Amino acid sequence: MGVFFLCIPSGDGQSESSPFLTPDSDGEHYYEGKNMALFEEEMDSNPMVSSFLNKLANYTNLTQGVREHEEAEDGVRRMTVMVPLMGTFIGVYLPCMQNILGVILFLRLTWIVGTAGILGSFAIVSMCCICTLLTAISMSAIATNGVVPAGGSYYMISRSLGPEFGGAVGLCFYLGTTFAGSLYILGIIEILLTYIIPTATLFEEDAAMLNNMRVYGTCCLVLMALVVFVGVKYVNKLALVFLACVILSIMATYAGVIKTIIEPPEFNVCLLGNRSLKNEKFDTCAKTEVVKNLTVTTELWSLFCDSKYSNTTCDEYFTLNNLTEIQAIPGLLSGVIKGALHDHLGIIDHSIMAGSNRSGDLKDAQKSIPIGTIMAILTTSFIYISFVVLFGACIEGVVLRDKFGYSVKKIPVIGILAWPSPWVIVIGSFFSCCGAGLQSLTGAPRLLQAIARDGIIPFLQVSVTGVLYQPSPSASGLSQVFGHGKANGEPTWALLLTVGICEIGILIASVDNVAPILSMFFLMCYLFVNLACAVQTLLGTPNWRPRFKFYHWSLSFLGMSLCLSLMFICSWYYALVAIVIAGCIYKYIEYKGAVKEWGDGIRGLSLNAARYALIRLEEAPPHTKNWRPQLMVLCKMNSDLLVKHPRLLSLTTQLKAGKGLTIVCSVLDGTYMTRANDNLKTAMAVEKTKGFSHVVVSSNLRNAFSLLIQSAGLGGMKHNAVLMAWPADWKLALGSLARRNFIETVRETTSANQAMLVAKNIDRFPSNQERLKDGNIDVWWIVHDGGLLMLLPFLLKQHKVWKKCTMRIFTVAQMDDNSIQMKKDLQMFLYQLRLDAEVEVVEMHDSDISAFTYEKTLMMEQRSQMLKQMHLSRTEREREIQSITDVSRGSIKRKKQSAVHAPPLNIMCIPEEEVSMSNVRRMHTAVKLNEVVVKKSKNSELVLLNMPGPPKNKKGDENYMEFLEVLMEGLDRVLLVRGGGREVVTIYS
Amino acid sequence: MGVFFLCIPSGDGQSESSPFLTPDSDGEHYYEGKNMALFEEEMDSNPMVSSFLNKLANYTNLTQGVREHEEAEDGVRRMTVMVPLMGTFIGVYLPCMQNILGVILFLRLTWIVGTAGILGSFAIVSMCCICTLLTAISMSAIATNGVVPAGGSYYMISRSLGPEFGGAVGLCFYLGTTFAGSLYILGIIEILLTYIIPTATLFEEDAAMLNNMRVYGTCCLVLMALVVFVGVKYVNKLALVFLACVILSIMATYAGVIKTIIEPPEFNVCLLGNRSLKNEKFDTCAKTEVVKNLTVTTELWSLFCDSKYSNTTCDEYFTLNNLTEIQAIPGLLSGVIKGALHDHLGIIDHSIMAGSNRSGDLKDAQKSIPIGTIMAILTTSFIYISFVVLFGACIEGVVLRDKFGYSVKKIPVIGILAWPSPWVIVIGSFFSCCGAGLQSLTGAPRLLQAIARDGIIPFLQVSVTGVLYQPSPSASGLSQVFGHGKANGEPTWALLLTVGICEIGILIASVDNVAPILSMFFLMCYLFVNLACAVQTLLGTPNWRPRFKFYHWSLSFLGMSLCLSLMFICSWYYALVAIVIAGCIYKYIEYKGAVKEWGDGIRGLSLNAARYALIRLEEAPPHTKNWRPQLMVLCKMNSDLLVKHPRLLSLTTQLKAGKGLTIVCSVLDGTYMTRANDNLKTAMAVEKTKGFSHVVVSSNLRNAFSLLIQSAGLGGMKHNAVLMAWPADWKLALGSLARRNFIETVRETTSANQAMLVAKNIDRFPSNQERLKDGNIDVWWIVHDGGLLMLLPFLLKQHKVWKKCTMRIFTVAQMDDNSIQMKKDLQMFLYQLRLDAEVEVVEMHDSDISAFTYEKTLMMEQRSQMLKQMHLSRTEREREIQSITDVSRGSIKRKKQSAVHAPPLNIMCIPEEEVSMSNVRRMHTAVKLNEVVVKKSKNSELVLLNMPGPPKNKKGDENYMEFLEVLMEGLDRVLLVRGGGREVVTIYS
Repeated sequence: MGVFFLCIPSGDGQSESSPFLTPDSDGEHYYEGKNMALFEEEMDSNPMVSSFLNKLANYTNLTQGVREHEEAEDGVRRMTVMVPLMGTFIGVYLPCMQNILGVILFLRLTWIVGTAGILGSFAIVSMCCICTLLTAISMSAIATNGVVPAGGSYYMISRSLGPEFGGAVGLCFYLGTTFAGSLYILGIIEILLTYIIPTATLFEEDAAMLNNMRVYGTCCLVLMALVVFVGVKYVNKLALVFLACVILSIMATYAGVIKTIIEPPEFNVCLLGNRSLKNEKFDTCAKTEVVKNLTVTTELWSLFCDSKYSNTTCDEYFTLNNLTEIQAIPGLLSGVIKGALHDHLGIIDHSIMAGSNRSGDLKDAQKSIPIGTIMAILTTSFIYISFVVLFGACIEGVVLRDKFGYSVKKIPVIGILAWPSPWVIVIGSFFSCCGAGLQSLTGAPRLLQAIARDGIIPFLQVSVTGVLYQPSPSASGLSQVFGHGKANGEPTWALLLTVGICEIGILIASVDNVAPILSMFFLMCYLFVNLACAVQTLLGTPNWRPRFKFYHWSLSFLGMSLCLSLMFICSWYYALVAIVIAGCIYKYIEYKGAVKEWGDGIRGLSLNAARYALIRLEEAPPHTKNWRPQLMVLCKMNSDLLVKHPRLLSLTTQLKAGKGLTIVCSVLDGTYMTRANDNLKTAMAVEKTKGFSHVVVSSNLRNAFSLLIQSAGLGGMKHNAVLMAWPADWKLALGSLARRNFIETVRETTSANQAMLVAKNIDRFPSNQERLKDGNIDVWWIVHDGGLLMLLPFLLKQHKVWKKCTMRIFTVAQMDDNSIQMKKDLQMFLYQLRLDAEVEVVEMHDSDISAFTYEKTLMMEQRSQMLKQMHLSRTEREREIQSITDVSRGSIKRKKQSAVHAPPLNIMCIPEEEVSMSNVRRMHTAVKLNEVVVKKSKNSELVLLNMPGPPKNKKGDENYMEFLEVLMEGLDRVLLVRGGGREVVTIYS
Repeated sequence: MGVFFLCIPSGDGQSESSPFLTPDSDGEHYYEGKNMALFEEEMDSNPMVSSFLNKLANYTNLTQGVREHEEAEDGVRRMTVMVPLMGTFIGVYLPCMQNILGVILFLRLTWIVGTAGILGSFAIVSMCCICTLLTAISMSAIATNGVVPAGGSYYMISRSLGPEFGGAVGLCFYLGTTFAGSLYILGIIEILLTYIIPTATLFEEDAAMLNNMRVYGTCCLVLMALVVFVGVKYVNKLALVFLACVILSIMATYAGVIKTIIEPPEFNVCLLGNRSLKNEKFDTCAKTEVVKNLTVTTELWSLFCDSKYSNTTCDEYFTLNNLTEIQAIPGLLSGVIKGALHDHLGIIDHSIMAGSNRSGDLKDAQKSIPIGTIMAILTTSFIYISFVVLFGACIEGVVLRDKFGYSVKKIPVIGILAWPSPWVIVIGSFFSCCGAGLQSLTGAPRLLQAIARDGIIPFLQVSVTGVLYQPSPSASGLSQVFGHGKANGEPTWALLLTVGICEIGILIASVDNVAPILSMFFLMCYLFVNLACAVQTLLGTPNWRPRFKFYHWSLSFLGMSLCLSLMFICSWYYALVAIVIAGCIYKYIEYKGAVKEWGDGIRGLSLNAARYALIRLEEAPPHTKNWRPQLMVLCKMNSDLLVKHPRLLSLTTQLKAGKGLTIVCSVLDGTYMTRANDNLKTAMAVEKTKGFSHVVVSSNLRNAFSLLIQSAGLGGMKHNAVLMAWPADWKLALGSLARRNFIETVRETTSANQAMLVAKNIDRFPSNQERLKDGNIDVWWIVHDGGLLMLLPFLLKQHKVWKKCTMRIFTVAQMDDNSIQMKKDLQMFLYQLRLDAEVEVVEMHDSDISAFTYEKTLMMEQRSQMLKQMHLSRTEREREIQSITDVSRGSIKRKKQSAVHAPPLNIMCIPEEEVSMSNVRRMHTAVKLNEVVVKKSKNSELVLLNMPGPPKNKKGDENYMEFLEVLMEGLDRVLLVRGGGREVVTIYS
């Protein structure tokens, strides 16, 4: 252990004055710092591992699963070893069982076997079982990929798939659960009215059975809602009792099957031809019977005939067919299975899937869940499939097809098989339905509440949570209660809504019609669970590391396909409706702009798609036909970090560059400020410029622009043109940087084969709101460097601002050009380019180089020389330039009045000074060209000009700026355009 | 005009010596240069507009359309005005007509009306007409979007949609045309055998009609192929004659309809019950007739009964029903239309669409095409629809349903309506079929040749073009001939293949079975034409500027939907087969890697998708759950412009970063060389690193790296981690730049919230081919800065190289930590993170700061001071450093032998020099930590360590490097990891 402690302030060591080491008893304070001093820079932001672990250990929500895990691993097998075992068996396995083995097993499975035959039912039931199993596998993977806070499958799916899908699926799940409630209640009433108290029917006619269901169903719903509202905890306690009934019923059925081997039960069914008869109103299965040696007609006779007498008119079918009495349950060994194997496949109710919904509604997503769920599904699959086979093997087909057991004295068909008594089944299925119904009514409102709490479905938030969060007595404590998953308060409004929707199901009044509805909703959920798992697996984000390893994307995909197939097999129109509903919810949430960020898989997909597309694009450069302006906008920011020329962004928008790529760049000198980027984004939003923004910080602005021009963009998505404002201040002292930057930018874009657009007087360009009327967009086409010059007006004219402008193309004919032919050729060319433009060929005769030109060149050169030689101080230089330009401006005015008419001066009169003849010629072009352009296009809305290239020799840089200035003189809005060295318009389609 | 000419060399003006202006007669040479001297930099690469226009005007292929346009515009209405008019009418309108009004109109339309009823046929025919019209509109847009070189619709579609779709559609179109040939030939034979020479049948039984078709069809095919092979020009000349026949037939039909108003023709049909009878073998339509007052049985009687006698056994249907004779054509005014309106909709043959294929095979894509095509479609639509109505209105339903006119003495049903003679129809339809068949056989091989020439379908290239380009007499001139679109040579092999496929159609032998096949292929083409138009419109590339303005994406979309619907209505299994075939061809071409770049719309879609995805991604930062390492790899290149540390790329690949974004960057000092980027890409390909590469040029390396770190990536696709190699040479003289670069990079990544990975001894890292066995990946987890440290081994272990390694996590417990509890907490945490790792808590007791540490710190500081004060020359400095490090290494060895056991020296024995205590503490941590790490992980395959942050004060930079060096001393492969300031692993799912 340390003896000496260091007492040193935790500075960076440079400010220390005392190098003495003093033992210090207060050193504990520096303990952590001392041994890990190397990491002291991190300490303020990141914790040391030991303190981090300490913090973690105190987090209650995590401990549960881990404790199990720890205990299992440490081999500490104490008495508490039963607790985790119970967790799997009672916590997962049994609830799953109860939900899967629901109303359908007892009330409809026999009928399904009867109509579809053993093979058909076997196929369908297997399909359902496989689908459920695959979904359970997918769900296990999702559930074991970390800690799910609470809320079961809804949370898992929504947090895997993102708010849009999550919300849609959550609502589907909720609707499914609610309709499941309806189904169970209808089941209860059906059992009650058909088997237990048939006399209780309010409406006597057969057709009015539906009304009985409606009335009793509604009463039952209200009763159950009250039970749920008053005492949820009693519901949970009763669950085990209900489950016991179900298990007893199943046992009784198996026992019954075994008994048929020993002694088939004496249930006979009376058939007329091949139809079974409802044996309520008769006892003897014969047309006539011998009573006291007299042949009298039976009760059956009077049911089918007009009177009791044998010569009366009878139903034709009755007359033609004979009555036979068969054994309802020939027994397992009777060979009835052979006939049942090949029955026809009728309309089948697939709500079998309505089970296992709760297998998703998991309280904790721990190790026991996959085992519990999958075991439960395997068990129930076995039960279903064995029942299918046994029913087919033991019971006559005609009896199986008797949905309500009319032919067997109103006992459920499965009941006649049961041993010791059919009542075991009746009571068992009754309680099963009660329990499941109560659970649905308990679960659904909580699910709705959870969805509403997430705030992704705005209208729900208002209607459910909004009210919930009012200071009502039950709501205040709810949030916490809900978080722990133990409900002892009730979400009143959500319950009311649930009861309302449930009532819709009850008004449908038929188990057979409600079942497909909830099947749809559940199948949709399963589909999305599988989708979520498949997407996550294929995307392979590092955080997809489920503890449950036995998943595979192909299994999830198969599960997904099965879900979809079952939806359409079950009922294709219901399936379409369900998909449309889910789609609408998705769009609604997307439209309302859910801001939840749950790390959705869809987002990951989007990223992957973008990456794939970019990599694919990189493979080959685009064809001329696909060329679009992909602009990089070089944007300056003023000292307030606001965009200096917002019109530059307007122009970008007007160029419809939004259809291509737009990168708006700005370089800051100094330290990075998020504000700058935010301001840039705001400016872009205001100007409706859609694109990306880059604000970078650099001590060297020139270097930064250079690198941006080289490296901005990604893969195939690079800019091909640079747009910037003309540096109006280049003549000022501070502008020397601007000048150098401008010329170097031109050079760099040229060497990177990018086009260049320079806007003069950018602040006078029209805003996006203006609408120009009847103006001209004039193109001065001097050099053909790719056709960008002609494409730009076309693009501008697509925007409302420039729509009404006319495009005019001017070109300059020189002495030996046939200008009439040139005009025709140009018209032809434009026709082939499919561009509408007026064409004009301007003759620019080979006039002499005027004295004015010489004068101007001379001054320009002199100034340039002077500046170089004298090393003027910055301020002096500024004054100097100012005076020179004042003079030259004066001379321009003078010149303009005389230029056209005055005869060329003799050049020899210019003093023999060092005038660069190359510069003279350039200046001559600039002056002459400016003259014709001003003459023709002075009043145009926009003039597009070819931008001459910068001099190859850097010495001429200053002159270059002067040439451009002269070229654009007297014009208002100018866009200098320099092609990127490649063709951008084509006459070919 | 100019008098003085300048004789100046075209330099940049700086080299001039003579300022004198001499008049020069040779000045013409500089003419262009002088007046446009400003643009002389452009002259070498870009032409002046006048010379460009000149060049254009000489291009023959463009002139034709423009000349028309010019003439039309200039109002020069000379005699030649008829030429363009002819172009539209004869060039487009009539050929379209001929193809649309084909075999179906004459041979099957009556039957369609008979089975589907007027309303049904009307609906179907209208649907077809609308579909064709919409396709024509889409095609007009595509065709008028520039000059299509040659080859018609195939070229247009392929160049709009890209090679994959283009090839698939081209082949579909080819197969469609070929099967159309079969259809026409079958039509010819049907007309011949049924109506013209019924006696010519080889096989007498009714069922053997198919064999007749096969034999005669094959003969006819061979004959036609010979005609095509020998003299294509005669075929083209006959086309007009054939067309005249068609028009005459149509006229005859209309005339016939008018005649029915005046006097319905005397065609009677004999009905037995409601079935018509084939009236070949009998004359009298009665069971018995009175001949010489005797009632005798008729010929009909003997056909249905065993004998002539009236008491014999007859066919039951014959006995039960009476014979009636009705008028076949009650006429327009008879009211028969009422009955026909509501006939049932039977199976309908939709090959109606088989027309208009040629409307796509345009010779030139000019202004007249849209008008011609659309007018032709409107005309034929009118004809079809009027025929449907008139047939229904004039002819008895039972006659209409008689497909081959058996009940009307083997005259085509439309023939009995025709005036003056049914033979007009028979002859007309016969020649129509002949013409169309010949055209199909002429067109199809040329289409195949065009597809083969494009080289997008490899096997075709070999089988068709490969042979064609052999020095065979006909092939050499073909290329040129084909280019001009005037065929007078014949693509022999393509013709043979076409004949072979055509024969398949003939062997099917039934017009009704072949028609759906070709319908499928054509509908598929139409579908793609519409798709191409819709995609182009929606993408809105600047080059999508069709001259034909009356298109809209919604029309194209509707057309597309109609095509798809018709395909499935027509025959859903054929439709599926056709789609599968097209899909296979698509995949085949994609797989074979078509390198053609035609500016495909699909590519544009891909770009748009990427842009949309990136913009969407930008909206929100990704959730921790979606975090993936998006690496920027800073790569150095040596003087040969090769990647210096290729293992850096291997490591990138092994990190599975391929699933995320990877940007490999390199900065060059000097001028840009494409070679550097190519080399980088090659190295990436070798190391299987999938990602983007950036090579930028900058005079300031530091600045360049800084900007890349700030600005690389686009939108939501930015890097979040920087990977680089440890600059092993930082102690050398040249390394001072490397050092500065390293530390600044660390600083910049920190301030940009990016993670940082630094690999020591990168060249000793395993290659992608190695497979490590049983090694350890050791994580030394000191500070929790986001969890990247723990995620990286997980990612590495996904790769085959590291698969068998075991991950071990070490953490350091200090004096007051309960290391047992810490271990448990850590295990729990890893369980929640779903990571498999061995956990070890190393106790690092608070030992004293050893003399060694002081010594080392002192030396480090002294050196640093000395360097600063003495301003050593570079070489001296290098030597100095070398000697110091030699000494320090020696001392490490010494220390290592003694450190553990030696008692702490009294620190006071260190001379009182300026030792910064902060540095001492840091050095202490580094030494102590290195000690435990070396002890535990010396033999590990890889050690991951937290990287301490750089000192905030820049003065300590040199020391920082020393600390890191000490920390990693004695370890082989080390990865220093610094988190990006955000959580990257989460226990939540």
